[in-house]
Amino acid sequence: MQLDVTPIEAGMEALVAGLSKAGSIDAREAILTTDTMKKELALSIELGGKTVTIGAMAKGSGMIHPNMATMLGFITTDCAIESDLLHEALIGSVRRSYNRVSVDGDTSTNDMVVVLANGMAGNAPIVQAGPDYRLFADALDYLNTQMAKMIARDGEGATKLIECVVTGAASEAEAEALAKSVITSSLVKTALFGSDANWGRVLCALGYTPSTFDPDKVHLAFESPRGYLEVCANGAGLPFSEEKAKLVLGAQEITILVDLDPGVEGAPSGCTATAWGCDLSYEYVRINGDYRT
Amino acid sequence: MQLDVTPIEAGMEALVAGLSKAGSIDAREAILTTDTMKKELALSIELGGKTVTIGAMAKGSGMIHPNMATMLGFITTDCAIESDLLHEALIGSVRRSYNRVSVDGDTSTNDMVVVLANGMAGNAPIVQAGPDYRLFADALDYLNTQMAKMIARDGEGATKLIECVVTGAASEAEAEALAKSVITSSLVKTALFGSDANWGRVLCALGYTPSTFDPDKVHLAFESPRGYLEVCANGAGLPFSEEKAKLVLGAQEITILVDLDPGVEGAPSGCTATAWGCDLSYEYVRINGDYRT
Repeated sequence: MQLDVTPIEAGMEALVAGLSKAGSIDAREAILTTDTMKKELALSIELGGKTVTIGAMAKGSGMIHPNMATMLGFITTDCAIESDLLHEALIGSVRRSYNRVSVDGDTSTNDMVVVLANGMAGNAPIVQAGPDYRLFADALDYLNTQMAKMIARDGEGATKLIECVVTGAASEAEAEALAKSVITSSLVKTALFGSDANWGRVLCALGYTPSTFDPDKVHLAFESPRGYLEVCANGAGLPFSEEKAKLVLGAQEITILVDLDPGVEGAPSGCTATAWGCDLSYEYVRINGDYRT
Repeated sequence: MQLDVTPIEAGMEALVAGLSKAGSIDAREAILTTDTMKKELALSIELGGKTVTIGAMAKGSGMIHPNMATMLGFITTDCAIESDLLHEALIGSVRRSYNRVSVDGDTSTNDMVVVLANGMAGNAPIVQAGPDYRLFADALDYLNTQMAKMIARDGEGATKLIECVVTGAASEAEAEALAKSVITSSLVKTALFGSDANWGRVLCALGYTPSTFDPDKVHLAFESPRGYLEVCANGAGLPFSEEKAKLVLGAQEITILVDLDPGVEGAPSGCTATAWGCDLSYEYVRINGDYRT
């Protein structure tokens, strides 16, 4: 996404709003349960010459599935925006972020994401879905996506954040279902824990959904900060070095790239969606097997 | 089930049919892949004074979900039975046995169960759904249920067979969905690996399904060859000793008893279904994380 956001020191958004920075830090820690790391982010954007700030804090580690649960998210902003538009921006953003996270397929009855806007930024109030709204909504999307990734990364026992990007799908809903099917597969999760470039398990997990796609057109690749590894083209395996696979998959953030229909160069490539999860480790078994009721 | 079956030595059914016992043993081993134990069973029943024999062999260990896959099953019998009735008996039995097993929620494209009948038992051929048919179908059900349990027990990394019996459901389909939801939950599976009587996770997993039931009526108990432990009545926890929980859940076969609507003594208690799975262990992670593509 090409978006001009300025990350700011977390807690500063509370200060900007005339509240206590220490209070923000206390709050973000008070909401944690089995989380092993704090989850917060703040950023600012320019709207008509005024600086608008958005901050978020969340908790969530286990039982994140299938839509938000089990997590809490609190977003604050000083943006002046009409409440229906604020709600619309939040709903859309939650659908593309927190609703696309799964840790272990288990779920719960508890979740919540709220956004509070006090309008103190002094921007011309956003009252319609124009450029200012889109800029604000994009910034909110960016913020929530980063927060969703923090939750997946802190999944119980996780050693790696796993992202699956599906492109070339018949609809966004199908792309989402496919991406979620990949990141929830225990066999994919254990393979990535073991840094095994097991593209067969990815292809297999795509097939668990009722989505229609042509397996003979599927391209698969793994990507991480350590490199890029193409493993499957037109549904067939490509030769790759185990050494490189171990290097790429040894990173703490791995993206599985699934293109269902690469199509002709430059042609539209269908719908896309991204989902986030984590690997399945010995530690997950220890945490949940050692627990006493 | 009150059924008068006589277990016979496996391989003997081949001998009875005039084939080689050694060939049967070779075959049951040749079909195994990642299985750690052979899966076979043979039994006989009396039909109108004649002894009818049924034998089965199967393979299956990982990726058993949601309906049979990934497994192979071969059933032979010398029963004289009309082919449409044989097919009907098999379909019904598969639905209540192999289709109710899940190891890790992953699945595949491969499965098959066949039944072959050569009619050599000399019984009056079964040509309608009368008492002989029901006796044969019950015996086939018993055989396939035992085979299904062997597959679940040999699930990858499994240290325990987990059975979930749901009663008091609005329909058999709902009972099945609920039982499957319990045995596929990673949190239930890890709890039982750790011998933790975590009935909250069981209650939670019941809630993952769209089934309608009243949580305030639910009764839960754990049972194993080592004892019986009631943990929840009318949706609320009962006091129990951790020592006894560890004893009961330390067994290699554990049944989770879920009664959704205990009702009045003697009154019909709704529909029932049983599903089988296994615990989630360190060994599952090792097997599937160490695997190299």
